[in-house]
Amino acid sequence: MAPFFGNYMTKHFEASSVTTSFNRPLRGLVGDIGGTNARFAIAERREGKTSLTNFKSLETAEHKDVYKALAAYFDMIGGKPELDYACVAVAGPVKNGHIKFTNLDWEVEEGLLAKATGARRARLINDYAGLAFALPHLEEGDTKCIGPVKQGFGDVHAVMGAGTGFGASVLVGGEFGPYCLSTESGHISFAPVNDYESEILRFLRKKHGRVTVEMLLSGPGLVNLYQAISSIRGELAEDLTPAQITHLEGEDATGSRYTVEAFLDIMASVCGDLALAHGATSGMFIAGGIAPRLIKHIDELRFRARMEAKAPLAGMVAGIPSRIIIHPYAALLGSANALTDVQITA
Amino acid sequence: MAPFFGNYMTKHFEASSVTTSFNRPLRGLVGDIGGTNARFAIAERREGKTSLTNFKSLETAEHKDVYKALAAYFDMIGGKPELDYACVAVAGPVKNGHIKFTNLDWEVEEGLLAKATGARRARLINDYAGLAFALPHLEEGDTKCIGPVKQGFGDVHAVMGAGTGFGASVLVGGEFGPYCLSTESGHISFAPVNDYESEILRFLRKKHGRVTVEMLLSGPGLVNLYQAISSIRGELAEDLTPAQITHLEGEDATGSRYTVEAFLDIMASVCGDLALAHGATSGMFIAGGIAPRLIKHIDELRFRARMEAKAPLAGMVAGIPSRIIIHPYAALLGSANALTDVQITA
Repeated sequence: MAPFFGNYMTKHFEASSVTTSFNRPLRGLVGDIGGTNARFAIAERREGKTSLTNFKSLETAEHKDVYKALAAYFDMIGGKPELDYACVAVAGPVKNGHIKFTNLDWEVEEGLLAKATGARRARLINDYAGLAFALPHLEEGDTKCIGPVKQGFGDVHAVMGAGTGFGASVLVGGEFGPYCLSTESGHISFAPVNDYESEILRFLRKKHGRVTVEMLLSGPGLVNLYQAISSIRGELAEDLTPAQITHLEGEDATGSRYTVEAFLDIMASVCGDLALAHGATSGMFIAGGIAPRLIKHIDELRFRARMEAKAPLAGMVAGIPSRIIIHPYAALLGSANALTDVQITA
Repeated sequence: MAPFFGNYMTKHFEASSVTTSFNRPLRGLVGDIGGTNARFAIAERREGKTSLTNFKSLETAEHKDVYKALAAYFDMIGGKPELDYACVAVAGPVKNGHIKFTNLDWEVEEGLLAKATGARRARLINDYAGLAFALPHLEEGDTKCIGPVKQGFGDVHAVMGAGTGFGASVLVGGEFGPYCLSTESGHISFAPVNDYESEILRFLRKKHGRVTVEMLLSGPGLVNLYQAISSIRGELAEDLTPAQITHLEGEDATGSRYTVEAFLDIMASVCGDLALAHGATSGMFIAGGIAPRLIKHIDELRFRARMEAKAPLAGMVAGIPSRIIIHPYAALLGSANALTDVQITA
C-alpha cells in the first residue's frame, strides 16, 4: 500500500478493482465508528447516484469488537448481502490500514474487515476524510447555508467540525480530484481577536497551558468556555455538561447564552481562518454534532461578519459560502463515495 | 483552461505538450517576479535532473513592462534560445492566466508570455507554488536543517516564508502528485502562546485592529514587533527599517535582539501550527528573504521546542523536519519543475 493511504492523505481507491457484474448496482458496506456509536449502512450506486439503505446505529459498548458488531448488523438487516466493497470511517488516525481507538476498546484492520464483510476491497478512512468525500454529494436540504448562498470559486472545499473533538479536512476537486487532504487543524493555537477573547485565553492558559482551537470548539471546549466566561463575569460556574450549557430555552433551561455566543463567534473566526489556511475558496462546510444543535441560536449576519473579518482578504472570504451539514450520516455517504467516485472521473 | 489552474490550485501541466526533439534537453525560460526584481534563467532537463543557466536579476523599475524586460534578458544572454516552455512565478494571485501586480506597474499574461519567449507553452504560477514545486529538487546543501535531521512520514510537505509578506503552500506527492495547494495562511489571525505575546497582540490590536501572522512575520512585521516590544519594555522606538532591526552584530549594530528573538519564536510557533493545519507530516520548509539572514541567531533547540509545543500532538510534530531554504533561486527551480515533473510521474 502506498504510504499516503494513511491518516493524512486519501485519494480515490483502486478504480478497476471496484466493479460489479452487469445489472446489479455497485454495493458496499459503509460505516462510521466513533467512541459511543458504530453506524452502518448498505450503499448502492446506480447511474452515478449513491443511495444508503439499512441504516443502523449500534452502541459500541454492547459489542466485544467491530467484527461482532458487524455480525450483529448483518443479522439485523436479514443477512449479509453480496458486497463489492467495505469502507469504514473512523474517529482517529488510520495507519497502514489499521486503527486502534483511543477512547474505545476496539481495533479495526482492513484485512479482517474484508473477511468479515466478504467484500473484495476494504478500506478504513479518517472520519473527516469521509465527510470530505461526502461534500460533492450533499444536496440543498442536506445543509443549512449561513448567510447568503454563494458560489465561491475554484474547486477546493474544506470541512471542519466540533463534536467530541475538532476535525478538519480539505477536498480538492477538478480534473485531478477528488483528493482529500486530512489535517490536524483542531490542534493549532487559539487566536483571540478582541480583548474579551484575550481574557478567555488568559484564564484557560493559566489552567491548561497552551490553548488550542479544539479546547474551545468541542464538547469539552464548551465547558472550558463556560468556566472562563463565568470567571470573567464574576459568576460561579456550576458543574454543567456541554448539553446543559447549550440548553437555552424553556422553563428547564440550564444554559449560558454568553457561552453559546462566544462559541459561535469563535467558530465563525476559525471558519474564516481555515478557509485561508486550507485555500478553501469554493466553500467551508461545518460538520460535527454541536453546530446543528445550535443553528437556531446563530445570528447569520454576526456569524458572517466574524468569518469575513479577514482584512486584507475580507473581500475574498466574503465570496466563500459557509454551510452547516445537517445530513444525519454524511460520513457514511462520504465513505460510500470515497470508493466509487473514481468511476465518475476515471 | 480548468478553473483550478488559478491562484489556489496548481498541478503539473499538460504532459504531452511539453516534449522535445531527441538529442536536445527540454528547455524552458523560467522566471520569478517580485516587486523589485525580476529574475530569469534558462532551465534544461537531462535525465530527470534540472539545471539552471544564464541566471540574471533585473530591476523591474528599469523596464516598462515584463516583455521589454524579457527582451533585455535575451540580449544579455546572447539571444533567445529555442524554448519548449516558459514558466514564471509571480508574487501575487494568478487568475485565468493573468496577473496584475499590486506593488508594480506590470501585468503578465500567458498568451503574451508565450509570444515574447517563442515557447509553445507558457504558464504563470504563484511564487509559493513555485517554491512548493522546488521542494523535491532541493539537495542537502540547499537547505539548513533546524534541529536534528528527520524523515517525517507520508508525502505532504509545506513551505512557508516571511519576506515582503508571508506566503505558504502545500506540496502533495505520492502516486497522484505532485500537486500544489496554494493557501493564504499569512492572513490567519495571530495566536499568542504566552503572556508576553498576548501583550504584543494587545499593543498591535489597538493600533491596527485584527493582527495577522503576516503582520508579525514579514519585513513590516519586524517593525510592528519592534514597536510593540519597545513599548512593553518602556523604551523609545526609533525609526528603524527591518534591515536595521535585524542588524545585531558589530560596532555599527542598530538592531533589537528582543525583536529578533520574538520574531524567531513566533516563526517557530507558526511553523508547528501550519504543519498541523496543512497536514504537512513530511516536512516544513521555510523560505522568504528574512529567515536565511537570521540563521546565525537561531537557537535550534529553542526553535524546535516552540515548534513542537503542540500537545497533544507534540510527538507527531517532533517527527516533522524543519528546514530553511538557502538555495538562492528556489522559486526558479520550482518553476522549471512545475512544468516538467509530470514527465517523471506520467
